[in-house]
Amino acid sequence: MPQGDTVNRRIVLAAHPQGLPTPRHFRLEESAVPAPGEGQVLLRTLYLSLDPYMRNLMDEAGTGYASAVPLGAPMVGGTVGRVVASRHPRFRAGDLVLGNAGWQDYALSDGTDLVALGEMQRPSLALGGLGMPAFTAYVGLLDIGQPKPGETVVVAAATGAVGAVVGQIAKLRGARVVGIAGGADKCRYAVEELGFDACLDRRDPQLARTLAAACPDGIDVYFENVGGAVFDAVLPLLNQYARVPVCGVIAHYNEDAPAPGPDRLPKTMATVLQKRIRMQGFIILDHYGERFEAFRRDMSQWIAAGQVKLREDVVDGLENAPAAFIGLLEGRNFGKLVVRVAEA
Amino acid sequence: MPQGDTVNRRIVLAAHPQGLPTPRHFRLEESAVPAPGEGQVLLRTLYLSLDPYMRNLMDEAGTGYASAVPLGAPMVGGTVGRVVASRHPRFRAGDLVLGNAGWQDYALSDGTDLVALGEMQRPSLALGGLGMPAFTAYVGLLDIGQPKPGETVVVAAATGAVGAVVGQIAKLRGARVVGIAGGADKCRYAVEELGFDACLDRRDPQLARTLAAACPDGIDVYFENVGGAVFDAVLPLLNQYARVPVCGVIAHYNEDAPAPGPDRLPKTMATVLQKRIRMQGFIILDHYGERFEAFRRDMSQWIAAGQVKLREDVVDGLENAPAAFIGLLEGRNFGKLVVRVAEA
Repeated sequence: MPQGDTVNRRIVLAAHPQGLPTPRHFRLEESAVPAPGEGQVLLRTLYLSLDPYMRNLMDEAGTGYASAVPLGAPMVGGTVGRVVASRHPRFRAGDLVLGNAGWQDYALSDGTDLVALGEMQRPSLALGGLGMPAFTAYVGLLDIGQPKPGETVVVAAATGAVGAVVGQIAKLRGARVVGIAGGADKCRYAVEELGFDACLDRRDPQLARTLAAACPDGIDVYFENVGGAVFDAVLPLLNQYARVPVCGVIAHYNEDAPAPGPDRLPKTMATVLQKRIRMQGFIILDHYGERFEAFRRDMSQWIAAGQVKLREDVVDGLENAPAAFIGLLEGRNFGKLVVRVAEA
Repeated sequence: MPQGDTVNRRIVLAAHPQGLPTPRHFRLEESAVPAPGEGQVLLRTLYLSLDPYMRNLMDEAGTGYASAVPLGAPMVGGTVGRVVASRHPRFRAGDLVLGNAGWQDYALSDGTDLVALGEMQRPSLALGGLGMPAFTAYVGLLDIGQPKPGETVVVAAATGAVGAVVGQIAKLRGARVVGIAGGADKCRYAVEELGFDACLDRRDPQLARTLAAACPDGIDVYFENVGGAVFDAVLPLLNQYARVPVCGVIAHYNEDAPAPGPDRLPKTMATVLQKRIRMQGFIILDHYGERFEAFRRDMSQWIAAGQVKLREDVVDGLENAPAAFIGLLEGRNFGKLVVRVAEA
């Protein structure tokens, strides 16, 4: 990924996708590297995080909690970068920072969204195991899911950036953990490396039956990050007083029309009622103020002690971000997906 | 409703209904009035409560929290009765008690499910405004819904046993209350007598639009007791951090097949996520231990002070219970539906 110091490559939104994005919805552009004004820093992107929520920002409407990416503007995204030039009192050239430079080589920032990282052995962890995805797992599982020892926790996308951490924290809390993942390799990894009690292939046409067999005591916490067929398999197994933190519904992000029947809502609501289920949505942006310090402390200890393992799926080169992102929506990544934009 | 002292009339489940029950699903039978054994009391039913949950008990499967009524057995139901004969140390002939005698003139009880009522001016209130339906409103609204002053609360079946109390307590807590009810008379009553800020006709084909107009600041608490089209009108109006206590889904109780599409679940889950909504089912039976005393104290005060008004829809004669119950499921009652089985 060679580029000169005067050229800023950026990947912009070329068109709003209907359904799954394709390469034509992205466009690689080049512009001049900008110069920082008074109070600004210029950032060189080292790592770009790719996360499912970005799909929602490609729609014209955006979401309730984040603005859509305008056509022709760079795709947004969390980044680890190095300060190249600074006219900001708090930052100096050479500083490693967490920011939101988006899908581009260089970006300006006024510093308000930057977090100084100090030097890290694995800077990309600030985008995964010590960053937003793992924080999402931590808050959703512990604050909303509240697993108790001996309870059964089910999480899909079990080797992904969020799911893998959900399962490992649940194990640390004494729960039985059943994962669902795409394919035998991921399932083996979840059990053998991450310590899940079981992991099922989401493509198994008998998923409802195998999940029931893997959860002989029912399900107490279902960490919802996919929706779709997994939800259907989970619903009848939910126990009385089950908790369902709702973190995402990837299976539905690419739907552009009302889903065909049957209508699953009445049965869902009847189950919520009869089993006294608590289903609660959360947006991780809300929780940084109250919970991020506790998360960083706990997670750093768990990582240092080898109690939480973090697998990254590193793609080299900004130009490969669109294909990697499409693969993420199809479940082709294996671990937290990051793009290495430049050498640290 | 004359009957001899030796004949016990009872209405039994004759067949499991598919969809809305009809009179043929019930059968009036006569048997001898039983004699109490040691430790038992014989109860004369004065008032029988008719409530939507009974529809679920007519299905072969029952529900997660209550057993189905076996074919040929008397329909179950809460009752106010008078002890006719007692071989139980805690009860004497003449005592007025709350119990579960079901749809019959007489019943035996071992006393474990009986609550002594003392003498009451309106004994039927023990089945409504001082009983299960109002307690359901109290717990669901205050403990799960948690309305704050100035917030908007929406409740359907607004003049029913639960909805009317939900709305009046919400008003006492300083919320803006919008009801939904069947027809102009009920809507007028909700606004003029119960003090709701607005009440909309559930049959209005423009319900989504009129509800949006009636809730200019969105909806913070939706007390879910009907499901169906009302839910669809409410969903897009829910505010960030809205709470949805799920108490019932009457609109779906009579469905005997998977509902036709479109599938409303993906959109619902996406809304739950993006708006951080908490949706929580509850079964009122769970809450008697911790909350019933507080409810009785508060509600008695509110009734005495005229702050909560209670309307009853009294049907005379046990033989009329099936038709009255079918009418309840169709929304034809106006106020808490009770059957007067015998003069107090």
